[in-house]
Amino acid sequence: MTQSTAPASTTSSPFHVYDTTLRDGAQQEGINLSVADKLAIAPMLDELGVGFIEGGWPGAVPKDTEFFRRAAKELDLRNAELAAFGATRKVGVRAADDPQVRALLDSEAPVVTLVAKFDVRHVERALRTTADEGLAMIADTVTLLLGEGRRVFVDAEHFFDGYRYDAAFSRSAVLTAFEAGAEVVALCDTNGGMLPDWVREIVLEVRAAAGPDALLGMHAHNDSGCAVANTLAAVDAGCMHVQGTVNGYGERTGNADLLSVVANLELKLGRQVLARHPDAPGGLPELTRIAHAISELTNISPFARQPYVGASAFAHKAGLHASAIKVDPDLYQHADPELVGNDMRMLVSDMAGRASIELKGRQLGIDLAEHPDVLSRVMHRIKDAEAGGYTYEAADASFELVLVEELEGARPAYFRVESWRAIVERNGGRGTAATAEATVKLHAGGERIVTTGEGNGPVNALDHALRTALGRVYPELAEFELIDFKVRILDQMQGTDAVTRVLIESTDGQTSWSTVGVGPNLIEASWEALTDSAIWGLRHHGVPPR
Amino acid sequence: MTQSTAPASTTSSPFHVYDTTLRDGAQQEGINLSVADKLAIAPMLDELGVGFIEGGWPGAVPKDTEFFRRAAKELDLRNAELAAFGATRKVGVRAADDPQVRALLDSEAPVVTLVAKFDVRHVERALRTTADEGLAMIADTVTLLLGEGRRVFVDAEHFFDGYRYDAAFSRSAVLTAFEAGAEVVALCDTNGGMLPDWVREIVLEVRAAAGPDALLGMHAHNDSGCAVANTLAAVDAGCMHVQGTVNGYGERTGNADLLSVVANLELKLGRQVLARHPDAPGGLPELTRIAHAISELTNISPFARQPYVGASAFAHKAGLHASAIKVDPDLYQHADPELVGNDMRMLVSDMAGRASIELKGRQLGIDLAEHPDVLSRVMHRIKDAEAGGYTYEAADASFELVLVEELEGARPAYFRVESWRAIVERNGGRGTAATAEATVKLHAGGERIVTTGEGNGPVNALDHALRTALGRVYPELAEFELIDFKVRILDQMQGTDAVTRVLIESTDGQTSWSTVGVGPNLIEASWEALTDSAIWGLRHHGVPPR
Repeated sequence: MTQSTAPASTTSSPFHVYDTTLRDGAQQEGINLSVADKLAIAPMLDELGVGFIEGGWPGAVPKDTEFFRRAAKELDLRNAELAAFGATRKVGVRAADDPQVRALLDSEAPVVTLVAKFDVRHVERALRTTADEGLAMIADTVTLLLGEGRRVFVDAEHFFDGYRYDAAFSRSAVLTAFEAGAEVVALCDTNGGMLPDWVREIVLEVRAAAGPDALLGMHAHNDSGCAVANTLAAVDAGCMHVQGTVNGYGERTGNADLLSVVANLELKLGRQVLARHPDAPGGLPELTRIAHAISELTNISPFARQPYVGASAFAHKAGLHASAIKVDPDLYQHADPELVGNDMRMLVSDMAGRASIELKGRQLGIDLAEHPDVLSRVMHRIKDAEAGGYTYEAADASFELVLVEELEGARPAYFRVESWRAIVERNGGRGTAATAEATVKLHAGGERIVTTGEGNGPVNALDHALRTALGRVYPELAEFELIDFKVRILDQMQGTDAVTRVLIESTDGQTSWSTVGVGPNLIEASWEALTDSAIWGLRHHGVPPR
Repeated sequence: MTQSTAPASTTSSPFHVYDTTLRDGAQQEGINLSVADKLAIAPMLDELGVGFIEGGWPGAVPKDTEFFRRAAKELDLRNAELAAFGATRKVGVRAADDPQVRALLDSEAPVVTLVAKFDVRHVERALRTTADEGLAMIADTVTLLLGEGRRVFVDAEHFFDGYRYDAAFSRSAVLTAFEAGAEVVALCDTNGGMLPDWVREIVLEVRAAAGPDALLGMHAHNDSGCAVANTLAAVDAGCMHVQGTVNGYGERTGNADLLSVVANLELKLGRQVLARHPDAPGGLPELTRIAHAISELTNISPFARQPYVGASAFAHKAGLHASAIKVDPDLYQHADPELVGNDMRMLVSDMAGRASIELKGRQLGIDLAEHPDVLSRVMHRIKDAEAGGYTYEAADASFELVLVEELEGARPAYFRVESWRAIVERNGGRGTAATAEATVKLHAGGERIVTTGEGNGPVNALDHALRTALGRVYPELAEFELIDFKVRILDQMQGTDAVTRVLIESTDGQTSWSTVGVGPNLIEASWEALTDSAIWGLRHHGVPPR
């Protein structure tokens, strides 16, 4: 991965949309992204059309080092460049001798974003050094990285609080960074307590000092509840680079929700800030889908009231105004939900809209426009299923099986289940290992088959038993493998009585597919997803029911 | 209840904090407040120090009629006045003849807030009448209610969108309301799409027209993610009345979060806007407690990232900066959490350092600085555990049990497990329900106890069996209840062979605690969290091992 991967065909904007979901967003309590999660999220951000994806802190976090190593080989980004986050050199060492700085170069990311202390109190009390050395650390590190051919952005940590305490130091630090050649200085409201008027005033003063060509950025946190507005105020004052995270993930109250920021900029302020790649338009119409898909990967329940993309964002309690809304929707909504891939009838579901199901069908090679009755049955079935806790956003294979069932009148009859059972037991106290065993009885290929599987846990044991049973009749199944298993408890105030949703991803080495199961019983939900996975895989391979 | 209930002893502010949780907040999808709920919430709002509590729409909503009837007898508010919400007279009838207007008088609320259409398009297309009749409806109804001794506020529905479409009509409507004697005209961003600069500009223009003494208010919705900032912009432009809801409840993306609004006004803008009653100071220090208590009544899970009051609002991932935070907390937080009744929490994360564990120990009442050997053992143990998939960020109770074990040399010996077993089975194909059953064998109180539990799923069944077994010796356990259960699959590229982390939250009705379990087997991980939960709860209640 080098700078040359930035595609010439992108409609590029001089405005930077800089996503830090994978770095600052991952600081959120409860989020713990694996390298695989990050590799799955990055292409979604790229599809959305952000200009930069901050992938992590190589050198400081081993998982992040690994992410950049694999990203260079495995990711094919069309719009975005990867940015490695890291610190300036340590106090009293040469930048070239600082192993943390070396790790940033080793990451091979075309952009390096250096965080540095822009509040003199942090320089003196946390770094325990002088203001001059604080400035030298910025200048030296920027210079070194530029010399190695990197684009260098600087995150001005604690900038606003620092400026309000000692404007002269914070301003010098900005000028130092630009003089050393930094392309961007992103002013950070690290503690998140700013208000829009304060932000605007300070940005205007910094621009006056740094000159109109200086590319300033804004990095906001939401501690005062104003992160989005603070970002817009900074843009109004001349910032041309905005940082934020998908769904506003981040430490404490989170970062600025990049989705609200870009939607406001594009729809309300008339600035086209997301890249549009000719082969994959992406952009705002994908906003809702991508927001939800990423929340599946972070395993953080989507916030229904989230602006633009929330399940309730365009939901109207029917009644008084229902017919008026139908006639004149624009009098009752601040933006057209379709522009952000959301739906006014989303009370029940994202997927439930006729157009989105049709689109989905087309993506799967099934033209539902030719089958209006099927479309209508599918729509009702999906609505009911989603009301019961199913989600098809991240389970294409299960969705396709619903379509197939409604088109063909029945699911593909590869097997008929008679019964199954899973047993987990532990004989002993703490430290003793539990064992899991499952028995499956089913009918396929004209036989009654009974198999038993063992495993680490009940789902693993069931998977082994099912695979062994079906493998007798369908040897093709031997290639399939389970690669991901996610559990989400819905209705969380009901403890273990709650409804469970299981998402399973399988692969045959060439393609991968996802299935969903829902039920009060986690094992049963898993069983549903496991059997859907086997059925979809066999059908996809053109194997006939035997 | 009459106007005379406004207590002379209140430190009254000319600034209005107007809460509409019980009316507009109750429009949120998923909220359904009973009269009893409303009667329980109103005193909390009063204690917080809001000036006005909008209780509902008497006459239009039977529950609300009942609320006002009972409130007049049962509530003893110290700071707040109750406001009844309702519409102006219908097209073409006398205000005195409109039963809906009569119902507002019958409610006996000292304040009536009339909603009226301030966007000429809504007057013409929804009311199907003329602009002149629209204005007359406002004037007539205000006049009638004033004549009956009520204070009259007017909610200017769709004001901002209307003003941007036809400023002349919207402005006339404001002047009409004031001329008829309205005390307040609250400008509503009903569709929630405004941005702060737009709000400020329009409010300034309206003030210029209405005069500096006109009491203007702001009612914001959060569809652009700027409700709090829009409210502050309106105040900056001269509004002296702010409307909002606790926790930002409301239709679609919700209303302005009144808690963030008042905290910003008091802590950042130096305006004391909450009433302080000498006998019950209330105010900001109660903010977090009241936010959470109200979320119990609305049965909406608190949003961890909510500014000021969220569980994560002042939580820091420790590691690197923990020692600096201890010395200089104000350099790392935008406000002192104690001022809003919240707490700084140090998350014990995979960057766990000595200082953060020490701090965490102190929060749990254990001074580890006096036990350096214990501190060091705990640190290594936590590091190992986190490397194995544990996380103590959200599992204070499990963390405390680790501390206790290292301090006292062993975990509290409430019981000894001999064995347990969980069985899930389904006899039949799709559509047949599965059953779950668990058996637990343990030793406690000198007995060997064998119990069986059933449940929706294996964890639920185990929970029931464990509870029944322990309950024989520890009846205190009957009060404990599981309220949340979260599952996270770690290392997700390994399919069902992956490691599972389970987080369980329990309550005894007074306090709640969280425990964690990890293992390749989900059921085993759940068992660990379940037993930790029972042990912590018994220890917390001072129950000795029997």
